[in-house]
Amino acid sequence: MSSSWLDAIRWTEDGLVPVIAQQAKSGKVIMFAWMNRESLSLTVAEGYAVYWSRSRGRLWRKGEESGHRQKVLGISLDCDEDVILLKVEQEGGIACHTGRESCFYRNLIDGQWQSVEPVLKNPEAIYKKS
Amino acid sequence: MSSSWLDAIRWTEDGLVPVIAQQAKSGKVIMFAWMNRESLSLTVAEGYAVYWSRSRGRLWRKGEESGHRQKVLGISLDCDEDVILLKVEQEGGIACHTGRESCFYRNLIDGQWQSVEPVLKNPEAIYKKS
Repeated sequence: MSSSWLDAIRWTEDGLVPVIAQQAKSGKVIMFAWMNRESLSLTVAEGYAVYWSRSRGRLWRKGEESGHRQKVLGISLDCDEDVILLKVEQEGGIACHTGRESCFYRNLIDGQWQSVEPVLKNPEAIYKKS
Repeated sequence: MSSSWLDAIRWTEDGLVPVIAQQAKSGKVIMFAWMNRESLSLTVAEGYAVYWSRSRGRLWRKGEESGHRQKVLGISLDCDEDVILLKVEQEGGIACHTGRESCFYRNLIDGQWQSVEPVLKNPEAIYKKS
């Protein structure tokens, strides 16, 4: 397969592109992360989201520890060719490392960030070392 | 009102935070842009999205030229405190400068970015100089 679709993306100076992950069925925005060229290629090849972890400086197969993988159902590019939107099916229904469905679990209410989403699973149980 | 909610945000070195705009009613992700502290404060104060235009280096009241303002119905913060999600009502039903509802109008299909959204209004008509 030609990789001209990868060349169409306007990568940052660091070779990254911001990625929004959205539940395909509900439309809920669950996560924001980054990809580089290799991770986006792998995402397409494997059918599951592979990000670039800036903090760890390595490829990050979403769910590699938690088991909460993201099956990719659609990939969109914005008008400026510098942002990616993924439609995903979030395995386990949990995208956030806090054990919530979405990372965007705090709303600005009366001048304060207030948590409005339940913790579905204790993070200690999610990331328990075997 | 205390601005401690602004201090909670982990701004980039340039003093910015990435912002995802989503149609409140349909859940459709329509835009991605940036805000600085002032623009986010103004967004809350005015009730309509005010971004920071990195290309123009100035505040950008969404819709200031097109009339397609974004009424803000909700503001969420992610687990890392470095991404904002806006629930908006997009006036005119058009967020993209190409005249489409969403900036994410191209899907990756058979290894190519293919436009899957109609142009609702000719950009020349949207941005016509008076």
